[in-house]
Amino acid sequence: MGLIVQKFGGSSVADAERVMNVAGIVTDTYKKGNDVVVVVSAQGDTTDDLIEKANEINPKAAKREMDQLLTAGEQISISLLAMAIEKLGCPVISLLGWQAGFNTNSIYGSARIKHIKPNRLQAEIAKHNIVVVAGFQGINRYDDLTTLGRGGSDTSAVAIAAALKADKCQIYTDVEGVYTADPRKVDNAVKLKEITYDEMLELATLGAQVLNNRSVEMAKKYGAELEVLSSLNPIPGTIVKEAAKMEKMLIRGVTMDKDVALVSILNLQDTPGIAFKIFSKLSSKNINVDIILQSFGRDGTKDIVFTVNKDNGPVAVELLKGLLDDDCKIVCNTEVAKVSIVGAGMESHPGTASKMFEALYESNINIQMISTSEIKISVIIDADSADRAVSAVHRAFIPGE
Amino acid sequence: MGLIVQKFGGSSVADAERVMNVAGIVTDTYKKGNDVVVVVSAQGDTTDDLIEKANEINPKAAKREMDQLLTAGEQISISLLAMAIEKLGCPVISLLGWQAGFNTNSIYGSARIKHIKPNRLQAEIAKHNIVVVAGFQGINRYDDLTTLGRGGSDTSAVAIAAALKADKCQIYTDVEGVYTADPRKVDNAVKLKEITYDEMLELATLGAQVLNNRSVEMAKKYGAELEVLSSLNPIPGTIVKEAAKMEKMLIRGVTMDKDVALVSILNLQDTPGIAFKIFSKLSSKNINVDIILQSFGRDGTKDIVFTVNKDNGPVAVELLKGLLDDDCKIVCNTEVAKVSIVGAGMESHPGTASKMFEALYESNINIQMISTSEIKISVIIDADSADRAVSAVHRAFIPGE
Repeated sequence: MGLIVQKFGGSSVADAERVMNVAGIVTDTYKKGNDVVVVVSAQGDTTDDLIEKANEINPKAAKREMDQLLTAGEQISISLLAMAIEKLGCPVISLLGWQAGFNTNSIYGSARIKHIKPNRLQAEIAKHNIVVVAGFQGINRYDDLTTLGRGGSDTSAVAIAAALKADKCQIYTDVEGVYTADPRKVDNAVKLKEITYDEMLELATLGAQVLNNRSVEMAKKYGAELEVLSSLNPIPGTIVKEAAKMEKMLIRGVTMDKDVALVSILNLQDTPGIAFKIFSKLSSKNINVDIILQSFGRDGTKDIVFTVNKDNGPVAVELLKGLLDDDCKIVCNTEVAKVSIVGAGMESHPGTASKMFEALYESNINIQMISTSEIKISVIIDADSADRAVSAVHRAFIPGE
Repeated sequence: MGLIVQKFGGSSVADAERVMNVAGIVTDTYKKGNDVVVVVSAQGDTTDDLIEKANEINPKAAKREMDQLLTAGEQISISLLAMAIEKLGCPVISLLGWQAGFNTNSIYGSARIKHIKPNRLQAEIAKHNIVVVAGFQGINRYDDLTTLGRGGSDTSAVAIAAALKADKCQIYTDVEGVYTADPRKVDNAVKLKEITYDEMLELATLGAQVLNNRSVEMAKKYGAELEVLSSLNPIPGTIVKEAAKMEKMLIRGVTMDKDVALVSILNLQDTPGIAFKIFSKLSSKNINVDIILQSFGRDGTKDIVFTVNKDNGPVAVELLKGLLDDDCKIVCNTEVAKVSIVGAGMESHPGTASKMFEALYESNINIQMISTSEIKISVIIDADSADRAVSAVHRAFIPGE
């Protein structure tokens, strides 16, 4: 018994049948004597459908109006879920983001939560209501509606768990937990029982699509214990917390990200401050650079190679063509992928990197760039080899069952 | 130049093309130097679609949650219309009912506006924004969303016109104004240039579906001049105001309403207070009785006949069977219609009623009941004869063109 926050994504509430299924999970939890706050996303493709409606009329619409439009999506799903819970005989009330006290800044489309005013939430819980809250949305100081950006419902759930000091925050998805690799692609991918916030953060950032990384950051900050589990199969999922048992594995997971472009600047005249000039230009246009590699070319020139999001590749090339002289050659390769391993254990195991490189070498996969942190190693390789690379690396590190 | 409130119904904003059409009307008005507040309903069938979604899950859902659900409809249409206006180059902002200051009571599903807090509306107008407001919705003292009931967007528009002392309130519909009869059914129906609030109120109550009658009441109360006109054909419509010129016609219109049931109680023992007993029972179950006729039957018994909404007919019969003794006979006839004529002029023309009855007699239509007020005469006839009756009466009163 305690206070449990449960979050359900859009596919979990896509139609009437699934809404009833979620209502079943929620009321089961409530009937065991728990207080329950439920956070839901918009149903299925609602958000995409609304974006399409907007694009038909004005593809460059003000972001304030986009948020006014999109927040209608969760408004529909929370009221429907409340009706389903009511049908199962439990007291319930639905609250929009602003009714639940989500105060955000004014960056429409990707607002940050400033604070949650928990009065209404607390009052409804005190009345023994199950509270269904619209994820992904809030209100700014001008009383205008805002959205938290894609995956924002995870953040909403964790924020409520933190504000109400909930005993548990359960993130229900269409997978059964966090796996060592994408189970649709790697046969012997293993579900983890536990994982640390830092590891989860690396996995989320590196392309595992289970949890939104901002929500993991927030959970870490407030020490809110997360559980990732399936809304369709009622078995224990993966617990995300400060310290996690290692289960005889050196790493927690292998991830792959194809949303990568590799930009190369070759034969660059080596003048002082040139790197600064390049990267400050990119940063001024909000282009995030991930991995950077610098090497010496011929005749005192140098080569700079870096990765950005795939969309930003051609943009970066255009920006740099305007900035640099015509002698150097700027090319962009979007046919690359980033494969990474993540695990807090690798810090104390110096052989981890070489074990990964060996596995790739044995599969005849060429490494174009390498980047490491304390708990992860990433390599850039040909996009074509990505699936093979994940399998090879996974085989090398994760014992088969 | 002045402040103009414009209201567009759901069919006027049903798709992207129509939304752009409405944006054109609005921006034309704005570019002529007017301040413009636009009130819109939910797009096309959105409200019905949402009701269907709810019924699939829980047909008896709490009305509070129904309102939470339905208000999403106008949220979508206001943001889309704002995007369309933005595209046409005018400054614009959309406001939900609560953002526009619509404070209502807590009768979910058919809330009444208590007052409008005009601060935000005034501030946006002062910034020279076109303001697009969600019709049909408001907020109660608990910060919960409410709806004003079907046709509520008309009321929203008039309420804004009254609160802001607008110079004009234009109600755009899919017809070109108020007609002397339904132009789809009566060939020589004439569009009225002007009509009084009282006449419009009778027409609206008696089945003309141009304006919601609560909105006419409110316009009358605050002296807000209304214009009913077409969003597809840009010609002058019908002005609704305190005093209207008569245009050589004795009546303003002929209406027909098939949502009527005739309940007859025959051979009722004539005990004191029996009529009170019957009608207080009906009123306690919120059944509104329209026309009542009482006559003497055989052997000291009496007959009471009255009309209610079609749905309430069988309900009334059941209630009365429990209340009255078995000697009397209670029957319900739902195959009836009410045909009415409306016009302030009839007060001073005693021959109006007989002229109407003559027209029906000449068409061989039997009158079952009659009800009159200062500015209207209604008759109950067989539903089968209703269309013929409207044509006959219209022919007798309205000069052909």
